[in-house]
Amino acid sequence: MSEETKQRIIKAGAELIHQRGYNNTGLKDILKAADVPKGSFYFYFDNKEAFGIEMVDYYADNFRETHRATLRDTSRPPLERFRAFFDASHAYFESHGFTRGCPIGNLAQEMGDLSEPFRAKLNQAMDGLTAAFMYILKEAQKAGEIPADLNIRETAIFIVGAYHGAIVRMKVTKTAEPLNLCYKFIFDRLLK
Amino acid sequence: MSEETKQRIIKAGAELIHQRGYNNTGLKDILKAADVPKGSFYFYFDNKEAFGIEMVDYYADNFRETHRATLRDTSRPPLERFRAFFDASHAYFESHGFTRGCPIGNLAQEMGDLSEPFRAKLNQAMDGLTAAFMYILKEAQKAGEIPADLNIRETAIFIVGAYHGAIVRMKVTKTAEPLNLCYKFIFDRLLK
Repeated sequence: MSEETKQRIIKAGAELIHQRGYNNTGLKDILKAADVPKGSFYFYFDNKEAFGIEMVDYYADNFRETHRATLRDTSRPPLERFRAFFDASHAYFESHGFTRGCPIGNLAQEMGDLSEPFRAKLNQAMDGLTAAFMYILKEAQKAGEIPADLNIRETAIFIVGAYHGAIVRMKVTKTAEPLNLCYKFIFDRLLK
Repeated sequence: MSEETKQRIIKAGAELIHQRGYNNTGLKDILKAADVPKGSFYFYFDNKEAFGIEMVDYYADNFRETHRATLRDTSRPPLERFRAFFDASHAYFESHGFTRGCPIGNLAQEMGDLSEPFRAKLNQAMDGLTAAFMYILKEAQKAGEIPADLNIRETAIFIVGAYHGAIVRMKVTKTAEPLNLCYKFIFDRLLK
């Protein structure tokens, strides 16, 4: 038993499940990808659900680590940082042929009704995404870049949703168009 | 072999998959719910994928039948009809404790990357939802209820996405809030 092995299982599972979905990915495939013998899975996790819930934290930490520097780069105006966040995210999707989507959004859709502990953890992760958007919207409002009457929390929740929905559409069009329209409406209409 | 039996399989599968997801629902469970012997599935469908693709048409037809009358009720102003569409959809989600979500959105997320024929059929179904929204937005624009400079197709795509994303969030909050915020931003901000 080692923390390193546990992390290797989570990382391998996060990658496979991001590609194929949670219910479509067997433990066998995850352990094979992690190069860990099947029996040892249960040293680290009670079951697939417990593993999945820890994996949500991995996705959320990954999101934070990837985007924190961009969003907190106070050398740039807030809305420019918010656009840079979408640009980075867009580049990721483009590099994968507009597949995969948001791992947290995917699991919310797939697992929100199927497991109460999973739902609670995903709700927390969604609140984390929302908090990141609230931070940058608050900065933009302080800087006078967006209307003073916009409710920051409500706007952040709406944008998280609009972006997740655009990402779902991207998965069936396999084009950038749904994403591009999402940015356009957010920046040119909603935040004006 | 009868068309009636085939439809019974599709209806039972559509209900189960809406509740549990596509990859989480076995053919065995669908056939049991439809009260059809397991062997006869292959009289009607080549495989689960072929079944799933026909099921997308069932969902899309169902959507059209449920909402067409509301959207085409020319005795009411277009935006009032558009609100009535969201009200009916909301009542459905509320009656199911904010579970399930949009069956087409769910499959787009789950299957968009996993099967090319499934993706193509879901893309078509998403275009159908978009067309319904385009129709009502066009009517609203003709009636002067929404800005003349709004691009109807782009606005419809954005709203379909924003609504799908709000529905995903609903699945983890298990509250009406994400939906309510979505209506608020669409009607009070985007379409003003």
